[in-house]
Amino acid sequence: MSDTVRLSLDAVQELAARALLAHGYSDAQARAVARTVTAAERDGCPSHGLFRIPFYVAALKNEEVDARAAPTLSSDDSAIAHVDGGRGFCPLALETGLPVLADTARRHGIAALAIHEVYNIAALWPEVEHLASEGLVAFAFTASNACVAPAGGIRPVYGTNPMAFGWPRADRPPMVFDQASSACARGEIQLHLRAGKPLPEGWAIDERGEPTTDPATALAGAQLPFGGHKGAAIALMVELLAGALIGELFSTESSARDTAKTGAPFGGEYLIAIDPSRHAPGRAAGSHLERAEELFATVLAQDGTRLPSDRRYAARPASLAGGVDVVASLHERLLELAGD
Amino acid sequence: MSDTVRLSLDAVQELAARALLAHGYSDAQARAVARTVTAAERDGCPSHGLFRIPFYVAALKNEEVDARAAPTLSSDDSAIAHVDGGRGFCPLALETGLPVLADTARRHGIAALAIHEVYNIAALWPEVEHLASEGLVAFAFTASNACVAPAGGIRPVYGTNPMAFGWPRADRPPMVFDQASSACARGEIQLHLRAGKPLPEGWAIDERGEPTTDPATALAGAQLPFGGHKGAAIALMVELLAGALIGELFSTESSARDTAKTGAPFGGEYLIAIDPSRHAPGRAAGSHLERAEELFATVLAQDGTRLPSDRRYAARPASLAGGVDVVASLHERLLELAGD
Repeated sequence: MSDTVRLSLDAVQELAARALLAHGYSDAQARAVARTVTAAERDGCPSHGLFRIPFYVAALKNEEVDARAAPTLSSDDSAIAHVDGGRGFCPLALETGLPVLADTARRHGIAALAIHEVYNIAALWPEVEHLASEGLVAFAFTASNACVAPAGGIRPVYGTNPMAFGWPRADRPPMVFDQASSACARGEIQLHLRAGKPLPEGWAIDERGEPTTDPATALAGAQLPFGGHKGAAIALMVELLAGALIGELFSTESSARDTAKTGAPFGGEYLIAIDPSRHAPGRAAGSHLERAEELFATVLAQDGTRLPSDRRYAARPASLAGGVDVVASLHERLLELAGD
Repeated sequence: MSDTVRLSLDAVQELAARALLAHGYSDAQARAVARTVTAAERDGCPSHGLFRIPFYVAALKNEEVDARAAPTLSSDDSAIAHVDGGRGFCPLALETGLPVLADTARRHGIAALAIHEVYNIAALWPEVEHLASEGLVAFAFTASNACVAPAGGIRPVYGTNPMAFGWPRADRPPMVFDQASSACARGEIQLHLRAGKPLPEGWAIDERGEPTTDPATALAGAQLPFGGHKGAAIALMVELLAGALIGELFSTESSARDTAKTGAPFGGEYLIAIDPSRHAPGRAAGSHLERAEELFATVLAQDGTRLPSDRRYAARPASLAGGVDVVASLHERLLELAGD
């Protein structure tokens, strides 16, 4: 059992923000990043929690990053809104755009938000959960840095390219999934490397395209999409939506631009929000959500099943009540970064 | 080599329509179905081609089917349009709704179309290809009859639940994929059964949840999603969009309602269309499409790669020029159905 420190979620938020503020982040950028980090800690996802703060600090080695950027919103009477993140980080750009996306979806029935010019090293589930908590069905897509081979190919073209989806539920948190189109997260390969463990079959290929279970060989080769050519098609779709559609970078371009090797992908994010109450005319308001509960009940009636977000939500009450355990060495590192 | 008959695409269209007309289909319903069947033959997809016509005829054993239904469109100043298919077949309902969906997407930047009360035994790629040919990015989703187990479960809940996506290309047909969220199509298991061949691993489980490669055992058990829990999450998303969101049936309900065992799924289809020219403000019109071509070129620069729709498009010129080969026994069966 590794040495850990118990922190309240307020303490997580403060520690994360202070570490970023000490390195030149603006208050607004720092607090927005800290909120996503705190949400991850709260939900038992440490890989997107405080563990990420040193990456956010390291990202500043890239002189193009603006950790004090103030995102700017542009919207009109169409169903598309845009936020220019100004080469800052994605969380503050999202906080700037999500309220407008929600309003626009309610006005038109469906709407989209394009986030431009951001560094995105966070998960996508916080934004789709936020939209779904407001009663909207939501999608989010983002490209990253190239590490996944296309179907039939051997060299990286796609990023881990997640697609997230959220569905609102009455009186409980939304159903949310946020899944990479790669077979595994890049960090999982790095964890196997550090632990000296072989990878499962199907995660990666070497530089000549042969399957490998060696983590170092995999990192030098390419990751594989999940589910073969079908996962690769989803990775391609994500590049098109978060890249070509909104005039942002592809994963290969983000990689090429990351000359300081910070690992922070630069580009865009694309979100779609749908108002269920504008659908199914002639049916009672709320009937969409009641119908979905019938489906969830059918799934959960079988032993061994769960909904995609159940594991995160199961972790939440204990974290909210009693805080979370943070690895002591990480905690010390963050105190150092905060200048304590 | 099996005995085949060469038919022009016009002859395919006429034969398909006549077989349906002879069984009470209205002219409009018959010709719309025949167009999707002809498109499949044209693109080298015989499983969605003339082979389907006997299923369309058999669907009439279900007294609830209305093969003379005239779909009705409802739209307003929102970005959501609805078509009530009137318990007819999906192709005519789509032809009724797609022009309005395209107009609405151009007006608002993004729009959706909910198709209600249809029997859908066609592929989804014709509609996303149509929208993408008009310069729009398009999604389509539909549930079917329950045959796929949820993640961790063993009994069928989801249909094969395809998601289709289309991206416009200048001077050539769109990039399109249309993929089941199951590891394989149900028809592929039936083909293995007929051929007496074992299934590949990972396609199906038996009634106790154990992996099986026996086609009959698989048909009595459950199919598996592609890519494990990630494919299952997509299947769930499709049920929510094409079912709960628009007030239509889930796959389990469609199955339960199919008391005549016609195999024709009843319910809805959900489509989203996006106008690229309303995105990426400040960039030149058409730049989205040019950017996408750079991505496609990067993918295709690697040996062994292809884009999802390339195989269909490769088959098209020869079919358009010289027609298609139809299995002689199927051709005879269709002549019989047409009353010749």
